[in-house]
Amino acid sequence: MSISGPLGSLPIPNFIHKRLFSQSSSNRSLNINNINPHVKEAKYAVRGELAIKSEQYRAQLAKGEGKDLPFDSVISANIGNPQQLDQKPITFFRQVASLVENPQLLEKEEVLKNGLGYKSDVIERAKKLLKDVKSVGAYSQSQGAPGIRQSVADFIERRDGYSADPQNIYLCGGASAGVNALMSVLCASPQTGVLVPIPQYPLYTATLSLLNAQMVPYYLKEESQWSTDVGGMRTALKEAQKKGIDVRAVVVINPGNPTGASLAADHISSVLELAAEEKLVVLADEVYQTNVFEGKFQSFKKSLRELQSSEKNKGGKFDYIELASLHSISKGMVGECGHRGGYYEMVGFDPEVVAQIYKFVSIMLCPPVVGQCLVETMVNPPVEGDPSYPLYREEYDTIFQNLKQRAFALYNAFKEMEGVECQPPQGSMYLYPTINLPQKAIEAAKKEGKNPDDFYCLSLLDATGICIVPGSGFGQKEGTLHFRTTFLAPGTDWVSRITEFHRKFLDEYR
Amino acid sequence: MSISGPLGSLPIPNFIHKRLFSQSSSNRSLNINNINPHVKEAKYAVRGELAIKSEQYRAQLAKGEGKDLPFDSVISANIGNPQQLDQKPITFFRQVASLVENPQLLEKEEVLKNGLGYKSDVIERAKKLLKDVKSVGAYSQSQGAPGIRQSVADFIERRDGYSADPQNIYLCGGASAGVNALMSVLCASPQTGVLVPIPQYPLYTATLSLLNAQMVPYYLKEESQWSTDVGGMRTALKEAQKKGIDVRAVVVINPGNPTGASLAADHISSVLELAAEEKLVVLADEVYQTNVFEGKFQSFKKSLRELQSSEKNKGGKFDYIELASLHSISKGMVGECGHRGGYYEMVGFDPEVVAQIYKFVSIMLCPPVVGQCLVETMVNPPVEGDPSYPLYREEYDTIFQNLKQRAFALYNAFKEMEGVECQPPQGSMYLYPTINLPQKAIEAAKKEGKNPDDFYCLSLLDATGICIVPGSGFGQKEGTLHFRTTFLAPGTDWVSRITEFHRKFLDEYR
Repeated sequence: MSISGPLGSLPIPNFIHKRLFSQSSSNRSLNINNINPHVKEAKYAVRGELAIKSEQYRAQLAKGEGKDLPFDSVISANIGNPQQLDQKPITFFRQVASLVENPQLLEKEEVLKNGLGYKSDVIERAKKLLKDVKSVGAYSQSQGAPGIRQSVADFIERRDGYSADPQNIYLCGGASAGVNALMSVLCASPQTGVLVPIPQYPLYTATLSLLNAQMVPYYLKEESQWSTDVGGMRTALKEAQKKGIDVRAVVVINPGNPTGASLAADHISSVLELAAEEKLVVLADEVYQTNVFEGKFQSFKKSLRELQSSEKNKGGKFDYIELASLHSISKGMVGECGHRGGYYEMVGFDPEVVAQIYKFVSIMLCPPVVGQCLVETMVNPPVEGDPSYPLYREEYDTIFQNLKQRAFALYNAFKEMEGVECQPPQGSMYLYPTINLPQKAIEAAKKEGKNPDDFYCLSLLDATGICIVPGSGFGQKEGTLHFRTTFLAPGTDWVSRITEFHRKFLDEYR
Repeated sequence: MSISGPLGSLPIPNFIHKRLFSQSSSNRSLNINNINPHVKEAKYAVRGELAIKSEQYRAQLAKGEGKDLPFDSVISANIGNPQQLDQKPITFFRQVASLVENPQLLEKEEVLKNGLGYKSDVIERAKKLLKDVKSVGAYSQSQGAPGIRQSVADFIERRDGYSADPQNIYLCGGASAGVNALMSVLCASPQTGVLVPIPQYPLYTATLSLLNAQMVPYYLKEESQWSTDVGGMRTALKEAQKKGIDVRAVVVINPGNPTGASLAADHISSVLELAAEEKLVVLADEVYQTNVFEGKFQSFKKSLRELQSSEKNKGGKFDYIELASLHSISKGMVGECGHRGGYYEMVGFDPEVVAQIYKFVSIMLCPPVVGQCLVETMVNPPVEGDPSYPLYREEYDTIFQNLKQRAFALYNAFKEMEGVECQPPQGSMYLYPTINLPQKAIEAAKKEGKNPDDFYCLSLLDATGICIVPGSGFGQKEGTLHFRTTFLAPGTDWVSRITEFHRKFLDEYR
């Protein structure tokens, strides 16, 4: 029995439960025991108990009621929300957005240019977008505005060196909406299985829970920088098949969330080979494709086209691979998550299946049109010679360098912390260190009915105001403990808050 | 067997089907026969075959390739998409939006005021919103930004004369996203049933199909201006219960879509009484609440509070009614559907159930933040004495008058058409006339494997470029035929295109 307050579900004794809820249950249509069980099963820790508690601390501090708290600010390192923290939006993007929002401004070009410093390419871009969408207040095609999809196709072609078809591009309200559409069509029964990395971004397990399908876990190799181990993937697949699970897709998050890993090209090819052999749809979550600190991002689409045109493709083995690659405006140097924009490219899908995906997304009408416009500016930014290019370049590079610096500052701090092991930062916005906690801390957690990593993260929040997410929210090998932190928060003060807390925590429970 | 092309599903012979798909089916993971059957079952005609064909005509005309077509423009009367047609966005809303998109503009107040004509209340509003959301590029709380929810609560209080709690307000990406969240939690099994009006906006049946739950139809009374007949509702409920269906909610669309009906207060009370007796969640779709041409809009929330404080509430009969009321920025004089904004207010729900709804929406992170800002401007527009008020008033009233005029122009045209019967316009953006087609037309439709109303609408599109939606997309009593048309398209030329087509059509098949 549990009661849900603003802090999530807390256990309460049975007799109190009866007193509180029995009347309500009998008078209402809905209660916790008769609603959709799959919603109840779904877990989404990124915005769970800790996040809600941190928001309460923040509200307390804002009202000036936080004098008794041992910290004076809340640091939201739980969620990749760049603009909630230090990251400024890119000027070109937002200037264009301001014009598509108020096209009347386009009648005053002189004021825009001389009074507000808008460059001519900003104005041209806004006009181009408005020609395509007519008004950002109008529904677009459910698949997204045609001109914007064309820009996405051009971007993919430039990125990969292989052509892309705008017909295969679906704009969506952030990658999450894309995953939801794809999974909703793919999951046909409680026996449908999808290979999901562990650790993973919990969108995948939550969506599979909601759709009453099976999460088939494959473990990433922490010891080799969280790389994808196709051997382990195959074993997981075979074991699931033995249990009667119809495994029909594999999710790969590259660069990794929460791991920060960046996949090498040969790992990607191995996944595609497995997909060809076992007829798996590949869902490539590539939303962190510009957050790469080591090496160069390689897309699944590029690897697929390379395989298809290589000698390995004897007998057309790779011809029918179904690949959906997702990208987003939420991450990278763009960081426009509040605008809810993204896209997925589908290649190799049966046209009848695509028609069903189209129908599915049409029920929700269309993705936010300003978000679509920002997708366009992301994939088609100012280039050398454009008036807005110098500022764009400077802003972009500064954000990138800041992220990289903070990633390594955090990594270096973790390396020094007793009982903490951390893989070097490669990409995305996260670090996912292992924490080794003393037995006494584990017992203290148990006493409070909590996982040890939950207990650790809650203690950190209460002591420092820093909100991170326990490893149990992403999955971890039995017997190991982790947490995920973003490296988006400005400054380094908060890193030392963690170091200090950690020392005291170990001292207390040693 | 059918094949899906850009025009939707077309029947094809079995042997061709085998040739086209057998290889693909055996090489791919997904095919039309193994994907989620509930997606396949879902129907959403508003964006179906006709809409896709009309877009093709539009593209043909745009490319100058439409010389052989018997029309020179496509009229999209199939979908309530005001800004795709004549409706201009309201200046105050878009000025505010341009500033939250580019907050750097706020550093140049003089240019804004003197160069661009932005009034001081525009600037103040943008600052207020930015204080609340920090950046429109940042995720907000999953439930929506707190200050915006407060504005919504204040609006409801002003509208109804009863207080509202911002904790009960959930912002969402258009009302469709709200319906999806509520239905997803509510539908627990294939035996869960929801009372849905017929005719209805197909979001409801499509969502119930996707969730594998039961649509329990109740028929609206065409002969009395499409009013809601609680007697019929009760009969439908009882019959469903006899079949073992666990009916736990009732959907009411007021003002009606596609019917245009506007419900009287006593009808609303009757629905609430039924809900109290039968423990039904009430889903009140009130997105057209400002599109009312006759009488005054009465909200379900107001009626509920009136009942709760009346003598009828002996024994607390109405205390536990669970009501979710939805509103949207997409319709009314706002018409900002491309921005995907809306909200729902939940009253009377068990807090444990609300916690599950919160978790469900948190998986998709948050509604578009600019859409949230537009919700704020919609519920908190300039008032008398504000610098932006005179223009706001003028724009708002002009849109309203234009809609009303076109509604009646269309209604008058329908009244003159042979075999067409139409209820007078009361609200929303639609008319839903009955069409009586000659037997020969019905046979011609049958020959092409089409419903007679589909056949009629397709003929209209091919002959005139006007896209409307057949009644079969919304539901209609057995043996009756209808179509839905918006009255958003400018001018009256297109009305006479319909009249002329109709005459010729009848002559052809008489």
